[in-house]
Amino acid sequence: MAIVIIRQDGKASHWKEILLSTSKNIPIYEFGEEHPKEDITMALVWQHPKGSLKQYPNLKCVASMGAGVDFIMADSDISENITITRVVDPMLANDMSEFVIACIYSHLKNLSFYGQQESQKSWTRKEYLSKEDVTIGIMGLGELGRTLAKDLQHQGFQVQGWANSRKEGIHTFLGKKELTQFLSTTSILVCLLPLTEDTRNILDKELFKKLPKDAYVINVARGGHLVEKDLLNMVDSGHLSGASLDVFSQEPLPQDHPFWGHPNIHITPHIASISSPKSIVPQILENYNRLAKGEQLKNVVSTSKGY
Amino acid sequence: MAIVIIRQDGKASHWKEILLSTSKNIPIYEFGEEHPKEDITMALVWQHPKGSLKQYPNLKCVASMGAGVDFIMADSDISENITITRVVDPMLANDMSEFVIACIYSHLKNLSFYGQQESQKSWTRKEYLSKEDVTIGIMGLGELGRTLAKDLQHQGFQVQGWANSRKEGIHTFLGKKELTQFLSTTSILVCLLPLTEDTRNILDKELFKKLPKDAYVINVARGGHLVEKDLLNMVDSGHLSGASLDVFSQEPLPQDHPFWGHPNIHITPHIASISSPKSIVPQILENYNRLAKGEQLKNVVSTSKGY
Repeated sequence: MAIVIIRQDGKASHWKEILLSTSKNIPIYEFGEEHPKEDITMALVWQHPKGSLKQYPNLKCVASMGAGVDFIMADSDISENITITRVVDPMLANDMSEFVIACIYSHLKNLSFYGQQESQKSWTRKEYLSKEDVTIGIMGLGELGRTLAKDLQHQGFQVQGWANSRKEGIHTFLGKKELTQFLSTTSILVCLLPLTEDTRNILDKELFKKLPKDAYVINVARGGHLVEKDLLNMVDSGHLSGASLDVFSQEPLPQDHPFWGHPNIHITPHIASISSPKSIVPQILENYNRLAKGEQLKNVVSTSKGY
Repeated sequence: MAIVIIRQDGKASHWKEILLSTSKNIPIYEFGEEHPKEDITMALVWQHPKGSLKQYPNLKCVASMGAGVDFIMADSDISENITITRVVDPMLANDMSEFVIACIYSHLKNLSFYGQQESQKSWTRKEYLSKEDVTIGIMGLGELGRTLAKDLQHQGFQVQGWANSRKEGIHTFLGKKELTQFLSTTSILVCLLPLTEDTRNILDKELFKKLPKDAYVINVARGGHLVEKDLLNMVDSGHLSGASLDVFSQEPLPQDHPFWGHPNIHITPHIASISSPKSIVPQILENYNRLAKGEQLKNVVSTSKGY
């Protein structure tokens, strides 16, 4: 039994160190170092390279190191008898919620506008919005969406959600049938959907048209949810007032992408919430021990639903 | 009995219209139009020109159209038998609170940094802070400060205040004796003090030195509270991480001011909270009627305290 860490962002050795500092005797390897392939039973992955999982004949669990598992679902090398898990990190949900709240307040008070004015030495006022002027519509009421909804409601925002099933304590619109109604009453749209075949490209021209004029869009889910040129058109035509985007179809965002420098499209480099070792490591180690004892794993992903 | 509106921001006629639309028969004049000086008993002022109040022999009340009265206190033409009032506007306090909260979240999540990165097409990450990483220290626990403290506490922020007397429900440090202790435990300092002779230039090098390294400063009170070059030095030396400033010693901020374009000093053009006619007009009309009947006015300012 052994663990391999597969990620391409240069952070594999950092994670290996952290895991070893918590559990000294665990056999753990980075993908890039020499390691006994047949020993590996658990792969910790984040955006792993295609084909990398094929070489482990005894693999039993593929664990996403974040909340998303779309890159695992897209990997056809993973056979059905391998369990897929993800991280359920309350800190991740809190961080995500704080980030979206930051984007909402910044939009209400035109902080990006003033940042741009500053570089032009321009003392120009723009009317601000207040909490009671907006309704926040959250697409996706999983762990992250529900935490955000709760936090916003607690702060006095009007909040509504769109999901496949009703959630307690939040006004929920259900499925395709109620999507138009949900959109028509939403002034700030937040996408926190999982990326599945049903939700890919869901943020498109047809959807944006159903939002009221001057609506604002926040995408912190996945780049694949958004048809980027449709957003650009709807902002440039004046139907949407702008957007905060933390995720993109290609990351880092290519140098020639029209989002760069757009006055009303605000870009952050996929930083809304970053998995914290403090809360992830115990989850990984618990599942490793359960795997060793043949017990049921925690935070298993449904391969049929895709999340 | 009549009212004159004296303000230099071009909004006098807008306010006259609003007052007349609420109370059709009230005799009300703009300072710039022909009007019978001896009829005027009440002056509605906002940053009125020096000497403008001298010409009203029967003036009984000078009413600030905002929460601040420093520009009235500084006017030596106002004799002691004239009552000074100000606006106590719950919407003003809410707007101010929302604006400061916007600045706090923007600081936590580095939104200004990313705005600047965007203009350089730079995909660079910077570690973010979370709510639990900071303590908000509010200087001044009047109407505005207390509303902000309550809102921040409700959202789960650690909050402490500095004032002349203890306030219920907020950990308060008292007067000069406890200022050092207050500052040493504050990571985000918010100035909401009234501007008096005691508080002028209070935000200076000596004060900033007592804040922990990387503290952030938000001034939404008056430009006169801040020694601008001291802030600049303390940010440039790396002791302070930056500042959000909505008020300045000279407004609009002069074109050659070093704050313009400074990467860590974020400027807004005095927009944190703008008096809303909806909530101010009834207060003005009520005091006008009380004045007519010789009754005690509401929201009278203490000339000895200066607020």
